[in-house]
Amino acid sequence: MMTDNRLLAALTPQARNEPDSGIIRAAMHGFTVPGVIPLWAGEGTLPTPEAFARPAAEALLRGETFYTWQRGIPELRAALARYHTRNFGRPFDDDAFYVTSGGMQAIQTIVQLIAGEHGEIIIPTPAWPNLAASLRIAGARPVEVAMAFRNGCWRLDLDRLFDAITPRTRAIALNSPSNPVGWTAGIDELIAIRDVCRKRGLWLLGDEVYARFYYGEKAEHRAPSLLDVCEDDDQLLLANTFSKNWAMTGWRVGWLQAPRVLGPAIERIIQVNSSGTPAFLQRGCVAALDEGDAFIARQVAEAREGRDLALRMLGEIPGLRFEIPRGAFYLFFAVDGMADSASTVRRLIDEAKVGFAPGSAFGPGGEGYLRLCYLKDRATLSEALSRFQSWMAVSRPS
Amino acid sequence: MMTDNRLLAALTPQARNEPDSGIIRAAMHGFTVPGVIPLWAGEGTLPTPEAFARPAAEALLRGETFYTWQRGIPELRAALARYHTRNFGRPFDDDAFYVTSGGMQAIQTIVQLIAGEHGEIIIPTPAWPNLAASLRIAGARPVEVAMAFRNGCWRLDLDRLFDAITPRTRAIALNSPSNPVGWTAGIDELIAIRDVCRKRGLWLLGDEVYARFYYGEKAEHRAPSLLDVCEDDDQLLLANTFSKNWAMTGWRVGWLQAPRVLGPAIERIIQVNSSGTPAFLQRGCVAALDEGDAFIARQVAEAREGRDLALRMLGEIPGLRFEIPRGAFYLFFAVDGMADSASTVRRLIDEAKVGFAPGSAFGPGGEGYLRLCYLKDRATLSEALSRFQSWMAVSRPS
Repeated sequence: MMTDNRLLAALTPQARNEPDSGIIRAAMHGFTVPGVIPLWAGEGTLPTPEAFARPAAEALLRGETFYTWQRGIPELRAALARYHTRNFGRPFDDDAFYVTSGGMQAIQTIVQLIAGEHGEIIIPTPAWPNLAASLRIAGARPVEVAMAFRNGCWRLDLDRLFDAITPRTRAIALNSPSNPVGWTAGIDELIAIRDVCRKRGLWLLGDEVYARFYYGEKAEHRAPSLLDVCEDDDQLLLANTFSKNWAMTGWRVGWLQAPRVLGPAIERIIQVNSSGTPAFLQRGCVAALDEGDAFIARQVAEAREGRDLALRMLGEIPGLRFEIPRGAFYLFFAVDGMADSASTVRRLIDEAKVGFAPGSAFGPGGEGYLRLCYLKDRATLSEALSRFQSWMAVSRPS
Repeated sequence: MMTDNRLLAALTPQARNEPDSGIIRAAMHGFTVPGVIPLWAGEGTLPTPEAFARPAAEALLRGETFYTWQRGIPELRAALARYHTRNFGRPFDDDAFYVTSGGMQAIQTIVQLIAGEHGEIIIPTPAWPNLAASLRIAGARPVEVAMAFRNGCWRLDLDRLFDAITPRTRAIALNSPSNPVGWTAGIDELIAIRDVCRKRGLWLLGDEVYARFYYGEKAEHRAPSLLDVCEDDDQLLLANTFSKNWAMTGWRVGWLQAPRVLGPAIERIIQVNSSGTPAFLQRGCVAALDEGDAFIARQVAEAREGRDLALRMLGEIPGLRFEIPRGAFYLFFAVDGMADSASTVRRLIDEAKVGFAPGSAFGPGGEGYLRLCYLKDRATLSEALSRFQSWMAVSRPS
């Protein structure tokens, strides 16, 4: 024990004091309990389609197992340009894209590019906690601005957002559609944020990982995007991932989109982060981008059905409050009388065999809520929500 | 151009000013020149054996494509414990091991655990440049202590090493066998360094990636190791990789070995670095550890033959000086009259179609040298060295 204390004391304060991710804590506990239905993580029930997995498996077996391009293989960067040109209605160049070992690594690369010691990045919350954690571990500072849930709607107060700017601010982070609340920025909001970033010389850190999971009223195939309102020479950095659209969470491949002039700096950081992403995996990602549109459409349709099922079944439980999410694939719902979402999540795993993420994991404004991922097949989701209904009928959340 | 300058000025100084890795610069140039024989990187000619690749490909195709354990799958951590127990003559526990997305990510995790702002880590050079780069990008400071090449031998002066300790020193890094010079610490040196670290409360950061590539005189199956002289409660952190022993450079899977009490802190950092390593790849790593001993023996035998061939062919060229390396799989040789190794490397790629790494990439004490990797099949290595011989016969290094 004395030894343990001595070893812990020899860590940096930020490594020692950083809290565990509440999502991961739930998942790591849930992994040890047989039969739990996991709705804690942002992933669906479907494994990666064989059409994307096979090219990767074949490249691995034919020996494409050497060091590769730090920016990603040329074929994947070209496929990323094609995908964006197709979906964002204007041409994109291969040189805008850098392959990373997951979306998280794209975010960490951005932090290492722009945050620096004591630099601040403004983050609307509730938010996926990893950007804030990455900043703290790097010695920088997340400045969290809580969104408000009023009259059944989540709203980002732009005045409060801009009031958080200080001389140390390096960027405004915008996750739209948002994990966990599903809030989605409109074009006017994107323009307002862009204009302030331009005027103040700030970076705009975009996380549009859920852009395709958008339940607009005009059958739009994606949410409004920073790419709709920014030019190539804006201070725009976008982190993205293959995880969600193409059911590839376990692959750990993502990408970073950045102004071309940053290329050498990004390559240097990739070198010390990961030294590149497996070339054989990138072959599967090319297939996903070029042949994955029908799969995405299927996933989005399943998410919409899951959303509607979850809305209906949660609606049958007294004491819950939530907004109908416009994007992403989570329901973030308030539970009346719940003061400790982490403890409630643990009890739900143990007692009801259903796994959510605790609202407290998502920063200011998150306690009192639970998050579930509704990108699940109907039978799984229905069984999970039945278990939750039964538990709520006889139990009192902590 | 004005825009480019504005964007670059908005990066942190460390991201903007970090130099490119001279190894990567050589490789990225070499990738564009057809027919070059690449000896710049630390990898062999053999692709990953099918016995290791197939379990990974099969796991991918059967849909093991979801988020996984942040520490690595239990099966791989158990296999790491078995491997170490077998090779280091004492029992190791699964809990000592954390799977990372490559050895570089293990190093970055260590930097994030212990360095902190302005913290210093002492690094003997010439050294693989990535640890120093990782420290600078994190806002910490590499303190480089140049080894001396005298009377045909590389030697680490322990007094100079310990004289570099300041109140900001957090760790001494030790890469043995060394990339690039092949120097290998003896047990007495390991004990001396361990004792100073114990006395001063410093971490010992071990990189023993090349431990199995050891050409001792008693047919030892590995080099002396920090694991021979340290206890479980020493401040010892070891970064390692599947890349070298098992011909898996392109997989980007490694591991970190650390005192058990650091587990939660390591998991938090893994979460923001990579969010875990693909589970399906880890299945291949289990096979490598459990079934790979014959392959390692074959690789080490090939490396020894390559070393002897390279020593003979370089020995035929006037004006070169080098030590016979005791470990790893590089020759680091001085070229008389060469003042700019990076320029010489570029010319060798363009003019002779043979690719080395420039000595200047390896920090203080490295300029004036070139590094080649001799873990190559005989025909490839022989052709590459013939090209170098021919070029040297008519050209003057820059």
